[in-house]
Amino acid sequence: MSRIRIYNARILTMADGCNFIEDGVLTTDGERITYAGTADGEKQGTVYDREIDAKGNLIMPGFKNAHTHSGMTFLRSFADDLPLDRWLNESVFPREAKLKDGDIYWCTKLAVMEYLTSGITACFDMYLKPYEIAKATEECGFRCVQVGGMNNFSQSLELQEEWFNELNGKNPLTSYILGYHAEYTCSKELLSGLSELSHKYKAPVWGHNSETASEVSGCEERYGLTPTELADSLGLFDYGGGGYHCVYLSDNDIEIFKKRGLQIVTNPSSNTKLASGIAPISRYLKEGIGLAIGTDGPASNNCLDMFREMFLVAGLQKLKESDASAMDANEVLYMATVGGARAMGLDECDTLEAGKYADLIMLDMSKPEMQPVCNVTKNIVYSGSKADVKLTMIAGDILYEDGRFNIGEAPDTIIREVNKVNQEIGGVR
Amino acid sequence: MSRIRIYNARILTMADGCNFIEDGVLTTDGERITYAGTADGEKQGTVYDREIDAKGNLIMPGFKNAHTHSGMTFLRSFADDLPLDRWLNESVFPREAKLKDGDIYWCTKLAVMEYLTSGITACFDMYLKPYEIAKATEECGFRCVQVGGMNNFSQSLELQEEWFNELNGKNPLTSYILGYHAEYTCSKELLSGLSELSHKYKAPVWGHNSETASEVSGCEERYGLTPTELADSLGLFDYGGGGYHCVYLSDNDIEIFKKRGLQIVTNPSSNTKLASGIAPISRYLKEGIGLAIGTDGPASNNCLDMFREMFLVAGLQKLKESDASAMDANEVLYMATVGGARAMGLDECDTLEAGKYADLIMLDMSKPEMQPVCNVTKNIVYSGSKADVKLTMIAGDILYEDGRFNIGEAPDTIIREVNKVNQEIGGVR
Repeated sequence: MSRIRIYNARILTMADGCNFIEDGVLTTDGERITYAGTADGEKQGTVYDREIDAKGNLIMPGFKNAHTHSGMTFLRSFADDLPLDRWLNESVFPREAKLKDGDIYWCTKLAVMEYLTSGITACFDMYLKPYEIAKATEECGFRCVQVGGMNNFSQSLELQEEWFNELNGKNPLTSYILGYHAEYTCSKELLSGLSELSHKYKAPVWGHNSETASEVSGCEERYGLTPTELADSLGLFDYGGGGYHCVYLSDNDIEIFKKRGLQIVTNPSSNTKLASGIAPISRYLKEGIGLAIGTDGPASNNCLDMFREMFLVAGLQKLKESDASAMDANEVLYMATVGGARAMGLDECDTLEAGKYADLIMLDMSKPEMQPVCNVTKNIVYSGSKADVKLTMIAGDILYEDGRFNIGEAPDTIIREVNKVNQEIGGVR
Repeated sequence: MSRIRIYNARILTMADGCNFIEDGVLTTDGERITYAGTADGEKQGTVYDREIDAKGNLIMPGFKNAHTHSGMTFLRSFADDLPLDRWLNESVFPREAKLKDGDIYWCTKLAVMEYLTSGITACFDMYLKPYEIAKATEECGFRCVQVGGMNNFSQSLELQEEWFNELNGKNPLTSYILGYHAEYTCSKELLSGLSELSHKYKAPVWGHNSETASEVSGCEERYGLTPTELADSLGLFDYGGGGYHCVYLSDNDIEIFKKRGLQIVTNPSSNTKLASGIAPISRYLKEGIGLAIGTDGPASNNCLDMFREMFLVAGLQKLKESDASAMDANEVLYMATVGGARAMGLDECDTLEAGKYADLIMLDMSKPEMQPVCNVTKNIVYSGSKADVKLTMIAGDILYEDGRFNIGEAPDTIIREVNKVNQEIGGVR
């Protein structure tokens, strides 16, 4: 942990809409930001371990990947071009059953590498083996908010309560939020039990919600209620929380989201590639619902790239509404940073201000796709790519810089181990 | 021009579907490929100027950006979030009118930089000032097929005939194809004149075609014909050619495309961002129409990135058809390489085989998003990005390698000049 000073920077703090600080300086005292402002306003006298000339490049909050299944990297490009139910039941579940202890540790580290290259400084992760995930991400120095993925076949209320207690408050990089996989994989009794747990700890609850039209119609057949109505009727949302995907919310669902202060994480690449549909994000925005963006897991998407997601959040709304002004790039940038932090309970990681954690990225403004340097936030959303990410810092530590990783483990080792996992579950080269 | 040998490569020649050569070697004699095959089959005895250890990375044909307006880089992120007609009439045309001699030269060079970072080795370019474009691309060593963008306000039959004669057969990097901007910007007389030119030279004709629903209905009101029917009735397609966009072709239009052997270039990012719609590419593929992919210009898209386009060609078909198997990644990779070369008349640049031009790229297989190394072509289409491009070679010259450009001009100079153009037409930083 070292004190760092970055100067000659263009700074987008996200504390003031999409306005920039020109000729900016950002300093840290190790984990946290001590100053983010103009060079003029900087207090003198502090000695830093490292001073970085940003050369006019952009410093902004890291992206928050607000819905993912990091450990599924072993299934990337392995089960493409199938509808969601067949993809899950025929391709994903049988192969997950073959995973051994330790496999998810390596697969998660590979995802962390990819997150860092895409400027992602935290993820909202639903997957198996929470202790392996916490070990992997903490060792890398990566910030991970885990969420319960309980269903009828895996995890349990007892385990979820244990993880909730063990994975909160121990390491500032790690936290745990109560959750369920989805209505269609959980019995009503299980969801009721989760509601009791939520009430016991006064804690929010998250789950996949209304990802496909058939998921909604199935729930309506079973209960005469939408997935949102069912969860709300069981008291699951009494302490807030939200839903992943939310492609097919009814008017009444939207009212429940507003009444309970629930948030929505949209996953446009995954919904596109699995042909699930386009979530009405423009409408949710108008309704005042809190919005965030996630990549979903690498088995569906297939890549963990927030630049692709941001383009799609904007682009797909334009297609859906047949209106090129249906979604503004600046709104999308807010969702990908501050909105994600809000959804994940990371209120100390949302903006670049003194006292906040130093979770930030540097984007290379000298790349051809960033020219002309005219409307910078639009350049980021519409023409940015992971090739523009020069540096990714989490809690003051630089984990990725100019293509090199600083995550404890050698990248070659991680890559070798994940390919081994893939071979063992039947991958074909 | 130097003889180069690349060894330890995984080679995707695209001459044999999406099958790979493992432990491959590719050699050049300067401009052309002399061998692409297994290490075993390589003839010994040649001395090379440079030998490159590919370290297991992938060599494949460069992407062909089969529809673009390169010189519009000065307008990137400048006119976002407007419908196509207002975007064109209020934002683009008035600013283009302010361009001075020499501006398009610099703006084209910036686009070439971006093409090289995205593994693009040739573009099919419709824009103003063909001599400036040819000068810029030839100086960079970049392959450019220009196409006439004639309309009622700009260019003329006389100029197009001059350019057709002057820009073909002089420099192997440069060629020129007859074309028109679009039906809605051209009088019937102008299109008839172009048809005569096409017959005189027995040459194919290309133009924007059925990009929006209103373009088609406007043409039907004017002539009682679709844009394709009108062009065909005037004899414009008697020597082949094709259309850019083709979002709204009728059944009869499709029959005309098949009868005349016309090809279609799809531009999914642009059609998404301008809310124009989703072209029925799956259907065109089933009908056997030749398909290629283009980025369109940076004023609409906004980025010149074939990885984004490839993901969208596959993804948007899945959404459109509500079927996750609606488009296969391997078909998309074919469109982006061989399909593009066919559309552009670049039959010597389509595959990696002895005798073909050495227009190729190296993709970094050690990147996290390329793991596991399982279904490589799906990795490229679904999780690839410009960050994976290690090397871009055109006609045997390495123009981009590990982030560095070798295009004659210093990148800083190009960037400075384009920002100057943007300032002069009213750009706001």
